[in-house]
Amino acid sequence: MRNFAFALLGAAAFAFPASAQQQSQQTPGYVVATNPPAPPAVTELSAAQLRTVERLRTAALQSDNAWTIVESLVTEVGPRLAGSEAEARARDWAVRMLREQRFSNIRVEDFTIPYWDATREEAHIISPTRQSMVIAALGGSPSTPEGGLEAEIVRFASMAELEAAPNSAVAGRIVFIDERMTRSQDGSGYGAAVAKRGRCAPVAQSKGAAACLIRSVGTDPHRFAHQGGSSRQAQGASLPAAAVSPADADLLARLVASGRSVRVNLNIVADIRENAPSGNVLAEIRGRERPEEIVILAAHLDSWDLGQGAIDDGAGVAIVTAAARLIRDLPQRPRRSVRVVAFANEEQGLLGGFAYAKAHAGEIAQHVTGAESDFGAGRIYAFSTSEAPEAARETVEQIAQALAPLGIEHTPGKGGAGPDLIPMAQEGMAWASLAQDGSDYFDYHHTANDTLDKVDAKALDQNVAAYAVFAWLAAESDADFGSKPKEP
Amino acid sequence: MRNFAFALLGAAAFAFPASAQQQSQQTPGYVVATNPPAPPAVTELSAAQLRTVERLRTAALQSDNAWTIVESLVTEVGPRLAGSEAEARARDWAVRMLREQRFSNIRVEDFTIPYWDATREEAHIISPTRQSMVIAALGGSPSTPEGGLEAEIVRFASMAELEAAPNSAVAGRIVFIDERMTRSQDGSGYGAAVAKRGRCAPVAQSKGAAACLIRSVGTDPHRFAHQGGSSRQAQGASLPAAAVSPADADLLARLVASGRSVRVNLNIVADIRENAPSGNVLAEIRGRERPEEIVILAAHLDSWDLGQGAIDDGAGVAIVTAAARLIRDLPQRPRRSVRVVAFANEEQGLLGGFAYAKAHAGEIAQHVTGAESDFGAGRIYAFSTSEAPEAARETVEQIAQALAPLGIEHTPGKGGAGPDLIPMAQEGMAWASLAQDGSDYFDYHHTANDTLDKVDAKALDQNVAAYAVFAWLAAESDADFGSKPKEP
Repeated sequence: MRNFAFALLGAAAFAFPASAQQQSQQTPGYVVATNPPAPPAVTELSAAQLRTVERLRTAALQSDNAWTIVESLVTEVGPRLAGSEAEARARDWAVRMLREQRFSNIRVEDFTIPYWDATREEAHIISPTRQSMVIAALGGSPSTPEGGLEAEIVRFASMAELEAAPNSAVAGRIVFIDERMTRSQDGSGYGAAVAKRGRCAPVAQSKGAAACLIRSVGTDPHRFAHQGGSSRQAQGASLPAAAVSPADADLLARLVASGRSVRVNLNIVADIRENAPSGNVLAEIRGRERPEEIVILAAHLDSWDLGQGAIDDGAGVAIVTAAARLIRDLPQRPRRSVRVVAFANEEQGLLGGFAYAKAHAGEIAQHVTGAESDFGAGRIYAFSTSEAPEAARETVEQIAQALAPLGIEHTPGKGGAGPDLIPMAQEGMAWASLAQDGSDYFDYHHTANDTLDKVDAKALDQNVAAYAVFAWLAAESDADFGSKPKEP
Repeated sequence: MRNFAFALLGAAAFAFPASAQQQSQQTPGYVVATNPPAPPAVTELSAAQLRTVERLRTAALQSDNAWTIVESLVTEVGPRLAGSEAEARARDWAVRMLREQRFSNIRVEDFTIPYWDATREEAHIISPTRQSMVIAALGGSPSTPEGGLEAEIVRFASMAELEAAPNSAVAGRIVFIDERMTRSQDGSGYGAAVAKRGRCAPVAQSKGAAACLIRSVGTDPHRFAHQGGSSRQAQGASLPAAAVSPADADLLARLVASGRSVRVNLNIVADIRENAPSGNVLAEIRGRERPEEIVILAAHLDSWDLGQGAIDDGAGVAIVTAAARLIRDLPQRPRRSVRVVAFANEEQGLLGGFAYAKAHAGEIAQHVTGAESDFGAGRIYAFSTSEAPEAARETVEQIAQALAPLGIEHTPGKGGAGPDLIPMAQEGMAWASLAQDGSDYFDYHHTANDTLDKVDAKALDQNVAAYAVFAWLAAESDADFGSKPKEP
């Protein structure tokens, strides 16, 4: 399973870092041309369509269903690491919840995954002072020798500096990449900042390093380490690796700047297993005319395990479920089916997404479009889609019109498929992007501080409205948004 | 030593919670009348005095000495729990640093204290869900039985609710006090909020409880537990007690509200010892005319051990040291001596302050006045003193005039002695208060998040200016600020 998954991940895993929603810089295959065609002459939505859209928007802003869902998930389950007993409890929770929400065809598509968890993650400066640091082992990190490994720190201001360093500067040392992340609305600082999370270990190992520490990939000043996957397993690297909190990165930097030898003991105990049970949870509203055609609404059920997984991605599960529920409650089901998928194991390599793409390999064209919510609970400010055929552009424009009263701009040529939909998008599935304001997303992302209080209930409702409007118009239309299997 | 210290602490320990700077509600003995006398006709400062005051203010705002000091303390030592090996390293650091700052008569006044540290502090919800909580054992908490104790949670919205509860509602359960703290500039929300930290354990124990959990005493929404002393040792209580982070308090509250039985495993391992070494560090500028008369500038050297002790109270050590250094650098020493004291063990019962008062019991009148910086690094906005004799009021007004250009208001009748000066103030020493803006102080107070980046360098400089101006004018004057031994 591991080899299979990694083979599938291949180069794509590095082009689309797990959890990075804003893929515009990184996913040339899924972004429409930067000079998009002039918008077509648009037929206004019919009066009946407008009534339904208005009903969905109003109901979303009045309901607290999404809040209730995310509150329930973080209360009843909490953190739910991929492949863990907690992820299994989350699947049970999801099945129960989707039943209560009165969807049909609720099912779990099971598969197994490699399992990784750090049962101990500690680092201590032992010279020239003695202080504990707040760290988080990076996903896939092997254990250190019992009692930890001790070595001198060598600091690099960036991955590029590490790459340029001679082996002699690195060999036997603990590499420390002290690179900061830039805050932005669209999360575009993540792509640059996260490179060190995936690449520190393999590059450092190739130069003979003992271990890797990175300044946490995040934008907050608080004493949290940001967890996250690294790609070292895929590259055969086997160097222990961890992220340190901002204050501890500052401390290391000050000590190194003093010119003295800085020695650290890094102690990681990792629980690594093959064939852990996992699975995607699916639920549907069956289309009244073309039930085999599917508009997919996605989020992921798993989380890292220091926080509650509230903004990443309990909010997403709540948003897409509550949006679908509003469509379910309309007097008439839409023509096409709407499928909610709560994906497993987004965090440790999109394994749920790849399993889904494998299980539904022959159904690319039936997945007429889809969108994923996995960037917290900030307000949605922009809408875009993969490049749509001429005939579908009017429908896309109509969806954009229906989203505009929610403060959402149409930004053709931007955005990308959500992470769990990347494997399907790679095979040719069309997608839509409802871009959330992620200005503070990386303050909490993958930390112990990802808790329910960080979810803004009002912004959550606006998200529900947008997903409901998008999914209903897409499912009610007969537009071909461009899903077709890639030529081999 | 323990009994002695607790006898001394007596009722005062509960009237003046450790670290509470704003004592106005709680220290009737040290607060001037709420209807202060009309200000006297004030002679303006002389031209020579004005030049020196201006020089001190300017030098403070230009120097980065205070920043360098606090940076060095948190880098070279870091957390420094009272009585620990780290506190001993902090004393060594302080002696070195004070020597480098060119003070005279640098010395450590040694004593021993009871030692308490939690080497393990964990809590897990085990029913109806399984989740870990972020907690901090409260100072003085005994260990739980090996493997932890498990019991049902009983929630109270306030200490008053617990006190009113029948024993039958409490017996055998883990009491959870879910009271929130109010944010304020002067920290006045602390007095009310901290009551539960000291009183939960003894009250709960008297009703037969198994343990105590409190919502952290703090104003932030982040996933940190706020450490802190409790008074249970003094009252003979022996119930394990801990503070939980805001998000975990929310989680407990939601689970309890669901009506189900909520069970928690609380696991605390405490290292408790007698006769741990500790000591106050003293340094002086010897007065040129009346060296036996002392203006004391105080801060405390110890800290809790999850954070770096940057705002509590590395900043204070830096502020008063840098202020005294500016006076040291004047062309002429002031008439009276200025004494800097870095107190030990403020956090676990003002034991450094009590040891100082004992060692200097016959010297109340010689300590003409003093001020302590122990409320972070926010800007100073108010100045006040203990009630001054008629003859000293003009000098007090002159000090107020000299502080005004720093944006500091004279607020007679407010403020209180800093915590480490309380034992001396109880014996009759006069004091001054330079009240800092503590609006965000309790966001970080006693958490892992008390790190150097929370110190505002500009505000730090304003603090240095204020302490330098106050101490120089007080030391250069011959005013009797009212220090005299209390009648037995």
